[in-house]
Amino acid sequence: MNIDMIRAAQTRLAGHAVLTPILHSPFLDDIAGRRVFVKAECLQHTGSFKFRGAWSALSGLPPEICAAGVIAYSSGNHAQGMALAARRHGAPVVIVMPSDAPALKIANTRALGAEVVLYDRATESREEIGGALAEERDLTLVRPFDEPLVIAGQGSVGLEIAAHAQGHDVTEADVLIPCGGGGLTSGVALALEQDAPGLQVRPVEPQGFDDVARSLDAGMILSNANATGSICDSILTAAPGSVTFPILQRLSGPAITITDEEAQHAMALAFQRLKLVIEPGGAAGLAAALFHPETIEGDTVYVVASGGNVDAAQFSAALSSLG
Amino acid sequence: MNIDMIRAAQTRLAGHAVLTPILHSPFLDDIAGRRVFVKAECLQHTGSFKFRGAWSALSGLPPEICAAGVIAYSSGNHAQGMALAARRHGAPVVIVMPSDAPALKIANTRALGAEVVLYDRATESREEIGGALAEERDLTLVRPFDEPLVIAGQGSVGLEIAAHAQGHDVTEADVLIPCGGGGLTSGVALALEQDAPGLQVRPVEPQGFDDVARSLDAGMILSNANATGSICDSILTAAPGSVTFPILQRLSGPAITITDEEAQHAMALAFQRLKLVIEPGGAAGLAAALFHPETIEGDTVYVVASGGNVDAAQFSAALSSLG
Repeated sequence: MNIDMIRAAQTRLAGHAVLTPILHSPFLDDIAGRRVFVKAECLQHTGSFKFRGAWSALSGLPPEICAAGVIAYSSGNHAQGMALAARRHGAPVVIVMPSDAPALKIANTRALGAEVVLYDRATESREEIGGALAEERDLTLVRPFDEPLVIAGQGSVGLEIAAHAQGHDVTEADVLIPCGGGGLTSGVALALEQDAPGLQVRPVEPQGFDDVARSLDAGMILSNANATGSICDSILTAAPGSVTFPILQRLSGPAITITDEEAQHAMALAFQRLKLVIEPGGAAGLAAALFHPETIEGDTVYVVASGGNVDAAQFSAALSSLG
Repeated sequence: MNIDMIRAAQTRLAGHAVLTPILHSPFLDDIAGRRVFVKAECLQHTGSFKFRGAWSALSGLPPEICAAGVIAYSSGNHAQGMALAARRHGAPVVIVMPSDAPALKIANTRALGAEVVLYDRATESREEIGGALAEERDLTLVRPFDEPLVIAGQGSVGLEIAAHAQGHDVTEADVLIPCGGGGLTSGVALALEQDAPGLQVRPVEPQGFDDVARSLDAGMILSNANATGSICDSILTAAPGSVTFPILQRLSGPAITITDEEAQHAMALAFQRLKLVIEPGGAAGLAAALFHPETIEGDTVYVVASGGNVDAAQFSAALSSLG
């Protein structure tokens, strides 16, 4: 895992991923007490940064392997990113999803051309089902975060932040990133190390799901006690990965923890001041910038708004925090 | 009013306005029956394209005139665009607003550094109040649309669309633009005439406020019968202007009329598929693309999402159309 892989992924992504804008608002700056730059990755294809990693993985595979087909386990943003990336590569794709996943997510994934295989969370193992399918049909598994080609794709976000910082004479800043398994955070960290060494990633997690914070403190991979219990569903991964964690150990600043209420309020302010739709987990970084300014260094902070896949009822509930 | 003024405005805007992305979604393409490219101008500073015209006007004035201060009449997007543009120029700015304007709009305009002068719509004339203030304090009036420097700024949107079309081998397309007084539509039309002559602007208006459609049909400037009565408040201007109308007559394709319900549904789909917050009037172009495909030519259509200044209650109401 190195910077050359990230630059190569960026080259493969050019013209295929959205070059998402970096937005700001004087109203948000006032709340945060410093300049806040928001990388609007919710505007990426399929509504999250996951498209970058999926595209990087598919375009990085040997063409005959890609053409044979790919498989992923996901009920969320990785599923949609994989489905669209595979369709555009003309590659068959199977997504293994729990049968109790929201109907809209299943429908969206199918509408993007994927074959969805459902399993019963209570009685079946997705690894067994997926493994059997992969062997039978010669499909390649693409993991959601603990996979170098995926991390390389997510790292392109870091190259774009570094270029913005250079263009705005920002030499030192924290970069707050909603963190599940650490694919985005570790990819961005590697990119910044080379192109903007004064910028440091800070993983942001929901209260009760601070596996990365505790793992960094302990110097070893620790897991969350629970799998559910926060509205920030896209970043409730059990633990950092064996590829991502060593990168975080070497390059990450201290993690920050936010509450569900702070995520909702950040969503509402992004609606009002940036005109962006951000999902709860995707708003974690902005919530840290706005509501935990004392944990942050410097006069400028970057935030990645990592996804926008939230349903209307949940979004309207968040807006009600505007009062 | 010519293309050189638009190119000069683009140069003055570089590094100051957001280079807004052009987004698309396969789900929206399916509804429209063709490729739909959405210019996300709701992500512009102060939440609408109006910042471009305001910046263009202030930066285009002789420096000593700008420094003496400017004045505008507006309770909406032009007010906020002027306030921020003036603050960044270090110029005093007075905004004349009706005393019954929404408190949040007044507060936002003040927070951006403007002096807000309120008047009573029933008993006072904003022109008299503004004219007296302008004379007394030597302020320059910046009209919201019937002003060449403002039109030149809005036209930079057209240059960006033309560049995108060239990059995507689009040689013919309709460009659907929410249309009030015609500043944005006429500026874009002039830009496309030079840089993408196969692209044609199409003004989009709410039902009952189709002054541009009727004026184009009649060959003379006609007005709307009513001043209110649609949720598309940002494009309920009484009539096209004396500068904008001749440009529209020469370069515009037929206007399209949409309903409030269509605007709301377009807002909801932009939320779901693009992760954008668009205000009702700003969604008129997208509504035309999605719900009036039979009025449009070609396999690709461009839409300008011109603004995103909508309050939470109105936005949540629009989302409920998703069912």
